[in-house]
Amino acid sequence: MRRIITGLAVTALFTSYLAAADAPKGRTPNDIVDAAPVAEWTRIAASDLVVMDLAPDEKGRARRAVIQLIPAPFSQGWVGNIRKFVAARWFDGIAVVRVQDNYVVQWGDPDGETPGKAKALPAGMQTVPQRDYVRPVDQGLLHAFKQLNDGEADRTVLSPTNPDAYLRNGFTLLYHGWPIATDGQNAWPLHCYGMVGVGRNLSPDTGTGAELYTVIGQAPRQLDRNIALVGRVISGMEHLSSLPRGTGPLGFYKTAEERTPIISVRTGDQVSDLPAYEYLSTESASFTAYADKRANRKDDFYITPAGGVDVCNVPVPIREVKR
Amino acid sequence: MRRIITGLAVTALFTSYLAAADAPKGRTPNDIVDAAPVAEWTRIAASDLVVMDLAPDEKGRARRAVIQLIPAPFSQGWVGNIRKFVAARWFDGIAVVRVQDNYVVQWGDPDGETPGKAKALPAGMQTVPQRDYVRPVDQGLLHAFKQLNDGEADRTVLSPTNPDAYLRNGFTLLYHGWPIATDGQNAWPLHCYGMVGVGRNLSPDTGTGAELYTVIGQAPRQLDRNIALVGRVISGMEHLSSLPRGTGPLGFYKTAEERTPIISVRTGDQVSDLPAYEYLSTESASFTAYADKRANRKDDFYITPAGGVDVCNVPVPIREVKR
Repeated sequence: MRRIITGLAVTALFTSYLAAADAPKGRTPNDIVDAAPVAEWTRIAASDLVVMDLAPDEKGRARRAVIQLIPAPFSQGWVGNIRKFVAARWFDGIAVVRVQDNYVVQWGDPDGETPGKAKALPAGMQTVPQRDYVRPVDQGLLHAFKQLNDGEADRTVLSPTNPDAYLRNGFTLLYHGWPIATDGQNAWPLHCYGMVGVGRNLSPDTGTGAELYTVIGQAPRQLDRNIALVGRVISGMEHLSSLPRGTGPLGFYKTAEERTPIISVRTGDQVSDLPAYEYLSTESASFTAYADKRANRKDDFYITPAGGVDVCNVPVPIREVKR
Repeated sequence: MRRIITGLAVTALFTSYLAAADAPKGRTPNDIVDAAPVAEWTRIAASDLVVMDLAPDEKGRARRAVIQLIPAPFSQGWVGNIRKFVAARWFDGIAVVRVQDNYVVQWGDPDGETPGKAKALPAGMQTVPQRDYVRPVDQGLLHAFKQLNDGEADRTVLSPTNPDAYLRNGFTLLYHGWPIATDGQNAWPLHCYGMVGVGRNLSPDTGTGAELYTVIGQAPRQLDRNIALVGRVISGMEHLSSLPRGTGPLGFYKTAEERTPIISVRTGDQVSDLPAYEYLSTESASFTAYADKRANRKDDFYITPAGGVDVCNVPVPIREVKR
């Protein structure tokens, strides 16, 4: 998201991103990210990435989505299952089966519920209990929560004055790289755009991880604490979000031909042509400035800053670097 | 979004929508909408619709998006301009020029800023001042605001306990069919998914309406009060949201070939094969129950209700009826 010259202003919606050749008034969120020092970026271990290669598009172009698995303490039972699915190459040959506009893209075994046709699961799948949708807070988070409750936090995304419609007694924040909520006792990840979750049947089923989805619209936060989140798409999201919407109920494709095949799924350490990825530490000064700027846009384009921002509207910056 | 049988549970993410053949625990938001009496539905005048026919897709299938123009008191200067653009058939032959993932789809004259090549605007375009991004509250809204401030409102989406990250002193609500915010003095529409706004250059430019966009991701609420909203897509959103993302800066397409041509744009009363559209009155009992259910999901699928919901996560139900 580099600056482009004003000659392109033909299409000048949101030109705050465009460099006014004649000196812009204020820095933009992207300016802050671009200027963040190397030390503020955190490398994501290749072994924590899941690389999903879809069938090429109709013009033969490759389509790859890269998912970062969520770290402990969240959802580790499901994450462990997913690692087993990948290791067994179980995901190879499944397909995108559902695209519901402003909701989710979902992939899995198209015959998953058809007796006699469903692909057998690898051995050793864990059945994770519902209580694992949330996790007890750690000391660092407890400290942050106390700061918030005492009004001592001075960061926009970690602020007692930043309300959230889905929480009566608690806060949302960006913490150790992830959007989470906490009520001071438990914490849980949030259904923001691009987050990856585990499809499941009716409660008390919690899903194995064989069927996954990612959010492609307004954050469906009502799913928080009701379904396991296991990661997020950090590259290639556009290959999923731009797929044709299904015309069956809930956006399922009506015919096999409409589905997008998934050719192979590997962990990042098994993929030789993968770049490395870094995220801007959510505990860094630059991230604080970036989030604050997203909450208070005022520059050549913006005239009225909101003074606040939704946690799902502060995407954690990700960049590619040489491996 | 009708019920489907559990045999389809192959793909059972969010099966709360699926009718459990053996009696579901609770009604879903869609159940409530389906049961709403005829009197609670409000017809949208065909003259307030803008019908945008894109070029057919690569398989020759028609692609039509229908936009409802926002009513008074909001953005009427820009809406008036757009009516003139449509009447002059000025939009015929423009194109989708930009698709930025998790942000906007934008359409306009690809040569709009190129001297000598830009399409001449129709006569009589109004230059609307920035102050028109907001409008003084009317008596009805003032009453609702007082209810909210006094804690007398008992509706989830019209409730003093439903906070919003983008407002320090005010409330968001669904009012007369639209998502709006008010601080008790002014009101303004909100950048929810599918809302349509007016592209513009740097402030103090406010745009004419020649270049429009719609939101295809997490609500970019920082744009509220900074740009004019003129309507929302009520049908065919999937033809816009699933377009390939542009690979140039800000999601602009790099080549003319990547753009999707817009064949014709007409008001609804000029289109003979258009159905009529109705929305569920936001002042109806069913809408209240629907919004409340979206804030408090608990049924065969959901185990932990949030107790709140973001205003942009309560889409106003729209349905087609015979004209």
